Amino acid sequence: MLALEEARTRILAALEPTPAETVALAEGWGRVLARPVLARLTQPPADVSAMDGYALRAADGVAGARLAVIGSSPAGHPFAGEVGTGQAVRIFTGGFVPPGADAILVQEDAEEADGIVTVKEAVQPGRWIRRRGLDFAAGETLLPAGRRLTARDVGLAAAGNNPWLTVHRRPRIGILATGDEIALPGDPIPAGGIVSSNAHALAALVRAGGGEPIILPIAPDDRDAIAAAAGAARACDMLVTSGGASVGEHDLVQKALGPEGFALDFWKIAMRPGKPLIWGRLGRTPVLGLPGNPVSAMVCAVQFLVPALAVLSGLPAAPPATMLVRTGAPLAANDKRFDHLRASLSTDRDGHPVATPYPVQDSSMLATLARAEALILRAPHAPALPEGAEVEAIPLGQFGI
Amino acid sequence: MLALEEARTRILAALEPTPAETVALAEGWGRVLARPVLARLTQPPADVSAMDGYALRAADGVAGARLAVIGSSPAGHPFAGEVGTGQAVRIFTGGFVPPGADAILVQEDAEEADGIVTVKEAVQPGRWIRRRGLDFAAGETLLPAGRRLTARDVGLAAAGNNPWLTVHRRPRIGILATGDEIALPGDPIPAGGIVSSNAHALAALVRAGGGEPIILPIAPDDRDAIAAAAGAARACDMLVTSGGASVGEHDLVQKALGPEGFALDFWKIAMRPGKPLIWGRLGRTPVLGLPGNPVSAMVCAVQFLVPALAVLSGLPAAPPATMLVRTGAPLAANDKRFDHLRASLSTDRDGHPVATPYPVQDSSMLATLARAEALILRAPHAPALPEGAEVEAIPLGQFGI
Repeated sequence: MLALEEARTRILAALEPTPAETVALAEGWGRVLARPVLARLTQPPADVSAMDGYALRAADGVAGARLAVIGSSPAGHPFAGEVGTGQAVRIFTGGFVPPGADAILVQEDAEEADGIVTVKEAVQPGRWIRRRGLDFAAGETLLPAGRRLTARDVGLAAAGNNPWLTVHRRPRIGILATGDEIALPGDPIPAGGIVSSNAHALAALVRAGGGEPIILPIAPDDRDAIAAAAGAARACDMLVTSGGASVGEHDLVQKALGPEGFALDFWKIAMRPGKPLIWGRLGRTPVLGLPGNPVSAMVCAVQFLVPALAVLSGLPAAPPATMLVRTGAPLAANDKRFDHLRASLSTDRDGHPVATPYPVQDSSMLATLARAEALILRAPHAPALPEGAEVEAIPLGQFGI
Repeated sequence: MLALEEARTRILAALEPTPAETVALAEGWGRVLARPVLARLTQPPADVSAMDGYALRAADGVAGARLAVIGSSPAGHPFAGEVGTGQAVRIFTGGFVPPGADAILVQEDAEEADGIVTVKEAVQPGRWIRRRGLDFAAGETLLPAGRRLTARDVGLAAAGNNPWLTVHRRPRIGILATGDEIALPGDPIPAGGIVSSNAHALAALVRAGGGEPIILPIAPDDRDAIAAAAGAARACDMLVTSGGASVGEHDLVQKALGPEGFALDFWKIAMRPGKPLIWGRLGRTPVLGLPGNPVSAMVCAVQFLVPALAVLSGLPAAPPATMLVRTGAPLAANDKRFDHLRASLSTDRDGHPVATPYPVQDSSMLATLARAEALILRAPHAPALPEGAEVEAIPLGQFGI
């Protein structure tokens, strides 16, 4: 059985980012840049005022001075002339500082009447002037390739005058649920069967990770059906199967895909829940075979599929983000399998996050998994810990997972 | 000037969730439930095995016993008969425990040859049997109204046999950027003008918050143009303007909307960046007027628009999520305005998050805002703090903001 970290490293090392595509700036949010975004202009384009007030010569800005107001320079409407000795120009935040002026008299230190402004408080040369290029200069890299764009990034790309962005195509992930016993919600349920939850949960997780899910029709436990359904994998950046990954006689995914050219890398991981996990390649398409058990499938997806989506999207290879929490209950010593305790999150008196594992951790309890706000991570052979000890946990809900 | 918390409370109190709509389960991810999701079946539907092995009568399961294997019960294919004395049924994880059987002999404790299974380790009655309804029972509430659906929730709703969900309609947010000086990226830039970044940054933020942005054409600094553009607000759940919110002569939003029936609630907040902020109502449509400065606009959007989107979406009224961090630099005492220091995030030797404010906090520096990973919150009159002190911060990037 492979260690969890080694399995993840092997999975991520086998993946490449999707090719680039051009999208409109307005579609850029959440996408990963395939090329850097450069500034196509200098911002601010000239020295501008940081305040409402008057632009003047610093030498004129002594207390008691009276200056002739010869015009105004609001944002977007630069004053056409020059400021001479004894003169001032009304200016507003973002307005260009007119030639000749080298100081700003802020509004509350000024008094204007009949076209004359009186200086009530001496100015400081350069104070309240934002220099040309303070924010960025033309040609500068505003956003590097490989960055997932936030709302602020979209604003910065806009400010740099970029109507288009070059991003990685959303990874297309084929999702194939297998099993005679499963039916889609609302469809007739076979005797002894259950409603399929993995395909749609995984599709939602793919969306959460910025991918484009393609839900393939459910394949019954039949080699030909699975092989045929997997043919759809050729159009995908990755095929994710669920079910048929354990050792029982009814585990067909490996057998069905073998004759189609499936090359297995590994298929067992020292983790709980989720021991059986297939990783390999069908032609050029990577294949991740998740367990059929919904809780195991989702925990494996958090540990392997979410990071895989990141790499396919053009982000660096990395484990899922974790946070330090205090355990809300004593933890038993762990055995040889990496464990994931479903836990609720709360905050202690000092404002620190506390993760409390649910008392029953049965891997068939999907309702408990859905309610969970974090997975407490327990490395193989981790020692017993008292309540309040610091542990690492993967927060779930805040990422939509 | 209003305190930030009071302003947010007034904004959120004035909002109502959008009405409900029906969406397919596959479209449910990230949506907020308007009605609870109920279990339409019991899971598991019968007692099932938690392991691969043999179902038998506990009384027969003593070490050395030899039992006749009379059939099998894989998941999805229940055994039709009954298990009698001296008999066993091959069973797989998720398979129904056949009538008569009340114990599971796990595979590694069994040896099968010629239709006879030999018990190598005595069984315990009921062990490895998952009882009917362990996960959930028909009629039970699986997911409450008002919950934003995670990928796991989508799986749980599916497992409960729900092909449809009743969710709040995505809030439609009209976005109106105003100003003579601004142009869209790629469009000709007027002399002295700048490229508009607010509309697209705010639209991305609306998407990040689960809303549907409608970017209205830029309105020049002209009462009639602003009033006409704002007419589009009638089809929106909220109108967000940017620009024209401060006290200068060129601040037209209030004047332009007044004759259209705009009712102002307040328009100045003791915060930095972002003092000028309009809150009111145009007919039935709430109006949030953000400052024109891009950094101020985004910080105000984080503090007011993101929580407003949550309430419009059907979530509880709440401030943005914060985290406790250690400050990576000494912090000066704060004045009377609630401050938001743009900061980078790192991790100290003990694994604790550290937020380090950028040395220059000028509100015109959009590149610094985009680079920031958190906003350190400094309440009015907060005392000076040494490096390493604990402070509250709003994490930005991880929510796509």
